[in-house]
Amino acid sequence: MNRLSFNSMTADRWPLAEVIDACAEHGIGWIGPWRHKLAELGVEEARRRIDDAGLRVSSLCRGGFFAADGADEDNRRAVEEAAALGTDALVLVCGPPTTKDLAAARDVIEAGIERLLPHANEHGVRLGIEPLHPMMIGERSAINTLASALDIAERIGDPGVGVVIDVYHTFWDPTLPEQVARAAGRIVGYHVNDWLAATKDTVFERGMMGDGIIDLPAFSALIDAAGYDGPIEVEILNPAIWDLPRETLMRTTVERFEACVF
Amino acid sequence: MNRLSFNSMTADRWPLAEVIDACAEHGIGWIGPWRHKLAELGVEEARRRIDDAGLRVSSLCRGGFFAADGADEDNRRAVEEAAALGTDALVLVCGPPTTKDLAAARDVIEAGIERLLPHANEHGVRLGIEPLHPMMIGERSAINTLASALDIAERIGDPGVGVVIDVYHTFWDPTLPEQVARAAGRIVGYHVNDWLAATKDTVFERGMMGDGIIDLPAFSALIDAAGYDGPIEVEILNPAIWDLPRETLMRTTVERFEACVF
Repeated sequence: MNRLSFNSMTADRWPLAEVIDACAEHGIGWIGPWRHKLAELGVEEARRRIDDAGLRVSSLCRGGFFAADGADEDNRRAVEEAAALGTDALVLVCGPPTTKDLAAARDVIEAGIERLLPHANEHGVRLGIEPLHPMMIGERSAINTLASALDIAERIGDPGVGVVIDVYHTFWDPTLPEQVARAAGRIVGYHVNDWLAATKDTVFERGMMGDGIIDLPAFSALIDAAGYDGPIEVEILNPAIWDLPRETLMRTTVERFEACVF
Repeated sequence: MNRLSFNSMTADRWPLAEVIDACAEHGIGWIGPWRHKLAELGVEEARRRIDDAGLRVSSLCRGGFFAADGADEDNRRAVEEAAALGTDALVLVCGPPTTKDLAAARDVIEAGIERLLPHANEHGVRLGIEPLHPMMIGERSAINTLASALDIAERIGDPGVGVVIDVYHTFWDPTLPEQVARAAGRIVGYHVNDWLAATKDTVFERGMMGDGIIDLPAFSALIDAAGYDGPIEVEILNPAIWDLPRETLMRTTVERFEACVF
């Protein structure tokens, strides 16, 4: 329970100030804000409220989209915002391919991470490459397996570049045990939720822990064995979750975290 | 063009008799029927009409779902139907996991294929394990990468077991070139269509060749290099495609096959 972090995406329709309050009320010690939520308050005010509520920031979501116009400047700002929030982790959603050449798209991403790295290291912020589910390649990321993320992290070979592992994006992978073991020392974050068996929507149908088909205790055991002992973010993109009453969502999140993750 | 095969799923709302006629009218030499379409006419009548139209059957879709009740008996029937249609290929959609233990689910699938193999060999029908996109794990298949399919085919080590490679299910895989090369001698079928960049639906949003982000000529070059020179099925599950007028669908399929696949 002291590792539970509430990712703001799990309550994306609430103002960030309400997410902060709800976490504090329910004994949650960590929060993982997205930048569009941060923008509501501004970084300084958000930091003040998070501190006042006794919370710590597990990571900032997100930098990335390395092939987009202005990506480098925006990503440097994301690093600065992460540092200003007192977190050492910036989640990277790397962006989709811009041509049909996927290998070239992955090279563009790797080069973008290398350009961002010195700024991140100066600010004490680690860059966590989050592989996204292969179904998200068209609009969100050309990095779709943990192996692919680790290939980049290992080639760069700097402690400032690691991976963020989300069960939803990676549980299906038959090489998961080997790849999580390979990630030892490079795990910047661990995200939990669930994969609903009858998933029809490629973006907005993540499940609450325990509602789906992911063997979360087995997954967490791999993460444990790889030595990661940091905060664990609950991140759920799903309008059915967003529509829950505040008390229901917060209590369910805490209960399911305690019952289902380990 | 002489390798183009029209998979009946591309016109799933037409009776099989109409699909057969449409293929013949448009100079298509191959057809790939699904079993629910075959059931409309019965196997013998379907075979007679396919022969009369001068078509050959590239494969029968599908056997599989190895963990389902009565799977073995149904799969033996599928083998017999394939043989009765004069095709040497049965596509296997292997079925979803029935528990959260994915490795166990994959073992159940492998054991089911091994049980089916002698019957398939007796009938001269090869079993083609089709890896399905990871987003389809919950309801359709626990075999989600070409590597995973090849692991099974190699362990069984019989020429009667191979793989069916569909661009839609596999194009995102960063290890695709190595895996297709590894598949040499075991490729039972090759399916083309496209991945639409903005895909929102996990099942019914496949694109016509050329409408999406898959580098089809590069993919086909890998298949070529692996030595596969058999029929190439166009298989598109998409209500927007199904709603096209018959002439438009058939002409577009032929044109795009010629323009986009190689």
